[in-house]
Amino acid sequence: LVDAGLVSERGGAAGSVTKVTSGIGSQSRLGFKGTEDLGSGLSAIFQLETGVKIDDGQLDSANTIFNRQAYVGLKSKDAGTLTLGRQYTMLYNAMSQVADPFGAGYAGSIKNLFAAKGANTRTSNAIVYATPNFDGFSVEGLYALGEQAGSNSAGRQFGLGFNYANGPLNARLVYNNKNTDTVGKPTMDTSRNTLFAANYDFQVVKAFFAYGADKGLFSAELPSANAFAYKTAPVASIDSNDLLIGAQVPVTANDVIMASYMRKNDKTVLNQDADQWAIGYSHLLSKRTNAYVAYAKIKNKNGAGYTVGNNNEAGSGDKAFNIGIRHSF
Amino acid sequence: LVDAGLVSERGGAAGSVTKVTSGIGSQSRLGFKGTEDLGSGLSAIFQLETGVKIDDGQLDSANTIFNRQAYVGLKSKDAGTLTLGRQYTMLYNAMSQVADPFGAGYAGSIKNLFAAKGANTRTSNAIVYATPNFDGFSVEGLYALGEQAGSNSAGRQFGLGFNYANGPLNARLVYNNKNTDTVGKPTMDTSRNTLFAANYDFQVVKAFFAYGADKGLFSAELPSANAFAYKTAPVASIDSNDLLIGAQVPVTANDVIMASYMRKNDKTVLNQDADQWAIGYSHLLSKRTNAYVAYAKIKNKNGAGYTVGNNNEAGSGDKAFNIGIRHSF
Amino acid sequence: LVDAGLVSERGGAAGSVTKVTSGIGSQSRLGFKGTEDLGSGLSAIFQLETGVKIDDGQLDSANTIFNRQAYVGLKSKDAGTLTLGRQYTMLYNAMSQVADPFGAGYAGSIKNLFAAKGANTRTSNAIVYATPNFDGFSVEGLYALGEQAGSNSAGRQFGLGFNYANGPLNARLVYNNKNTDTVGKPTMDTSRNTLFAANYDFQVVKAFFAYGADKGLFSAELPSANAFAYKTAPVASIDSNDLLIGAQVPVTANDVIMASYMRKNDKTVLNQDADQWAIGYSHLLSKRTNAYVAYAKIKNKNGAGYTVGNNNEAGSGDKAFNIGIRHSF
Repeated sequence: LVDAGLVSERGGAAGSVTKVTSGIGSQSRLGFKGTEDLGSGLSAIFQLETGVKIDDGQLDSANTIFNRQAYVGLKSKDAGTLTLGRQYTMLYNAMSQVADPFGAGYAGSIKNLFAAKGANTRTSNAIVYATPNFDGFSVEGLYALGEQAGSNSAGRQFGLGFNYANGPLNARLVYNNKNTDTVGKPTMDTSRNTLFAANYDFQVVKAFFAYGADKGLFSAELPSANAFAYKTAPVASIDSNDLLIGAQVPVTANDVIMASYMRKNDKTVLNQDADQWAIGYSHLLSKRTNAYVAYAKIKNKNGAGYTVGNNNEAGSGDKAFNIGIRHSF
Repeated sequence: LVDAGLVSERGGAAGSVTKVTSGIGSQSRLGFKGTEDLGSGLSAIFQLETGVKIDDGQLDSANTIFNRQAYVGLKSKDAGTLTLGRQYTMLYNAMSQVADPFGAGYAGSIKNLFAAKGANTRTSNAIVYATPNFDGFSVEGLYALGEQAGSNSAGRQFGLGFNYANGPLNARLVYNNKNTDTVGKPTMDTSRNTLFAANYDFQVVKAFFAYGADKGLFSAELPSANAFAYKTAPVASIDSNDLLIGAQVPVTANDVIMASYMRKNDKTVLNQDADQWAIGYSHLLSKRTNAYVAYAKIKNKNGAGYTVGNNNEAGSGDKAFNIGIRHSF
Repeated sequence: LVDAGLVSERGGAAGSVTKVTSGIGSQSRLGFKGTEDLGSGLSAIFQLETGVKIDDGQLDSANTIFNRQAYVGLKSKDAGTLTLGRQYTMLYNAMSQVADPFGAGYAGSIKNLFAAKGANTRTSNAIVYATPNFDGFSVEGLYALGEQAGSNSAGRQFGLGFNYANGPLNARLVYNNKNTDTVGKPTMDTSRNTLFAANYDFQVVKAFFAYGADKGLFSAELPSANAFAYKTAPVASIDSNDLLIGAQVPVTANDVIMASYMRKNDKTVLNQDADQWAIGYSHLLSKRTNAYVAYAKIKNKNGAGYTVGNNNEAGSGDKAFNIGIRHSF
């Protein structure tokens, strides 16, 4: 998948900037995956996926060639799927696949305000088990080892997801718990994220809703450290909740309007809240190619420093406009 | 494409060296490209291409996996082609595709004396538009954004190319202009390169000619800093012109002799001129595989420090011999 | 090929650790290779192979994308094969292909005690020539250039291998010689490794034997520097020999037990010997996929610090248990 376009960001301390950006709607990527039928409903599966920046050719993450996904496992029709490797969390899958009308991309990306940074999105050394689908209902569990000699808990992460998808309704309740200790350093807090996400397809409009609660140190890390160059840099909240209300309106079979309102409610004494309005338009040139425009605007309160980014970048200002093209191959 | 052989370099300050080198004729590379027909003469296109060193397995450029080309765009039969991403300049394409009988590779590479370093070859964040072909005539334009917050001009680059290809004649006139400022630092010069390149196929011999003018700071960066360990290191000229006269002589259907003479004329007071004589021989083992030998010798004047390199390396001495094999896949 | 599983290591100074590991049996990898028939029994061949860690998506080796193998060459039925690039040594091929019932992987890997570190396994800038096969007998030679300006011997490496494979018997005698000098630094020793490896298939059991001698500085580098945190770190022996006795016992057509005993005999005054017992079990789920368990235990003497690793990792303790799945694609 390749995705590139122009991004214009306004409102940052360093001034406005217009740039060619890769991965506005979905990060440009390239991968290999496969399935081998082992008989009796059992399959061996694997996936290796690299993220690249098509504007300058760089890897998303230095030296980590398959930074997006890398796993191998066994899949059974009756007993579920067990995979080992670098994988998405249930938390992020619920955000991108169910909660966000922008699919975690474009100026309106749910990642601008919700807690999707770092290990909240993907985690290495993860063991994931997913049950088979029972009438639309399935459960997933993740356990990622900390791999620190002398402690089994330092750095470990676990997650749980309850999924329901049937007819027009798609709903998920997910939980993610990170232990952020390092052996030999003082014990820290755990970070705990809970998210309920749902969408319902009314045909004339598809409605989206999400509510999340983020508790503990590193539960909601800031995408940008201090984009507005405040004297006092914004502080990542250790107790916040997040709300999203959104919609997709099909205009023709090939055109869709996307819109969302999000609010970050910081429950600490700093009360660094923010909200975002976003709108976008996507036109399908074919089943595999679409052109898009999107615009979003954030209002920060009490020294909050949230920025309008997109799927690939955190952004540098409180307003951004995107125009580009995305092509799957 | 994989290309490897032996290179023997003589005349450098550090002594002679014989080595296994990747990319003597054409840098070893691996890529993915595609086209999707969108109907009405419109196509979506993309390309991702990585450069690798087959002698030691390293990436050409640390962390930049698709350092050669990475772009996505739309192509229309009637309206031309628009692409976004990391792309070649018109300047370099004219050198490698039209001007040089060695195709910018082997010991005789045009890159040894002409201004092909860094962003003169490829540039990130580039928007390129090419017109359709009108009776052999076409025009290309490039604009690469500087992407520096607070300035739209700092770091931007643009280029323009007029191409004519019809029957035995192939000619190009190209212009490249780089702004080398950085926001917050003092304003610098722009670097401006103009090149006329042409070749004509007389059947018994294909004749090559090129003339370039390079003006401004960084307009003609040196491939090697100070390979001959002079007390006073060579200085990159800010006002120079370049000349090439060359030929390809087909011996049989599978064998060709390549030869060229190049001259760098430094018009500054330092007058660090250089000229190069080069000869090579290529034998096709199949349509996709060739074996080659090549030799070139540079004469540096007034403390100039040009070196004989090849497509991939800048070289370490004023003489070099290559022998190797190139295989496309 | 993707391979991932759980590894539990005990006995290291930093404490025990359980982790998700990539490449326990064979390092996870991805590659491109090809052959082009040039007629008259001649072919052009190439291979590019990258090693990746499927647990976290990282490249095996920073920036070296095709760190495993990268070469191009010519193969003739009558005259043998000549290849240029980054390639395996004859020494390592004899270890992994002939000597070790674990195939250099799992907890029992021959790499835990034998001299397989760094350039003993693969070397860049190598020219390899292999004769055709004469009634099961063939000879291979390797010469890797040091590529240091001013010296042809500094950093060069050469190797030689005599191979015999016919019916149930497979035997190799190999020699590897590394010059570890750097131009401008004092002259150092060369490192010299000789290895005899053989296996014989008695049907009910396949027997394995190997004996190696390692002489000179860097001839047998330590996989782990000081995993047991001794006051005096272990010293890499400059005069040692290595013994392996092993077996593979087929239980069913799809199941095999692997076992080996290895001994490192340090002939220096420090006398830092070690021996290892290892056992493993592999079950084929299909021709391309197998599940495995393995266990090994090392006994270190006189301050030796050898650790139980696997194909990809050096390990952190003197005992390790592996369980996982490997899938070729």
